[in-house]
Amino acid sequence: MSEFPSEFEDLLVRPLIGHLATVRPDGAPAVTPMWYAWDGELLRFSHTTRRRKLRNIEHDRRVSLAVHDPEKPHRYLQTRAVVEEIVVDPGGDFYHSLQRRYGWHGPAPDSTERVIIVARPVAYSVQNG
Amino acid sequence: MSEFPSEFEDLLVRPLIGHLATVRPDGAPAVTPMWYAWDGELLRFSHTTRRRKLRNIEHDRRVSLAVHDPEKPHRYLQTRAVVEEIVVDPGGDFYHSLQRRYGWHGPAPDSTERVIIVARPVAYSVQNG
Repeated sequence: MSEFPSEFEDLLVRPLIGHLATVRPDGAPAVTPMWYAWDGELLRFSHTTRRRKLRNIEHDRRVSLAVHDPEKPHRYLQTRAVVEEIVVDPGGDFYHSLQRRYGWHGPAPDSTERVIIVARPVAYSVQNG
Repeated sequence: MSEFPSEFEDLLVRPLIGHLATVRPDGAPAVTPMWYAWDGELLRFSHTTRRRKLRNIEHDRRVSLAVHDPEKPHRYLQTRAVVEEIVVDPGGDFYHSLQRRYGWHGPAPDSTERVIIVARPVAYSVQNG
């Protein structure tokens, strides 16, 4: 594993919009904006059980997350990661914690169908602004 | 091809930061923030000839671009696309046009090694904010 680039950790700690790439069963890439949480070791994402990204991850657990600095768009962190667990989130507790982290006050109509995608970074690449 | 979601075209017209996903030769996904240009039919990106993303695309021409609305982060457009051409950009003319589009006044040290990645969307998915 490449060493963690600690001078870029703010991009995982701040509630920024990440972009999570997965690979579809046909081998083509997919990418969508995602909220995330970082505990210093693992990345966590919330997802409904119905959507395509989860099917992609069940097929291939390798993912990639990019987060850029909105104040300096050329400064970014990319991590490649492997999904270790997909954990049920009954009641959407983790999802609600993400809503609080991101200051979101909108609806969460599908909170009862939520899972937590837990991913361990295995490599990093960065670019400075 | 899924129909173009015209009510989301502003996300391609505005100079926003896109995230372009590719697939590495080992099958894992990669994603980085990218400038882009949209002419109503094709997406164009600038890239140096040295970097990994170009090697990924030469191996598998399927890519995916996500652009979200910075004012409404839940509103986004994802397109799957196929790279049709990789065109040399001697002198970096296209790269300089992207710099103007994005109001960038920083350095462009590698402008002599630039290529244009030309991608045709083949499917779209959207989410509203």
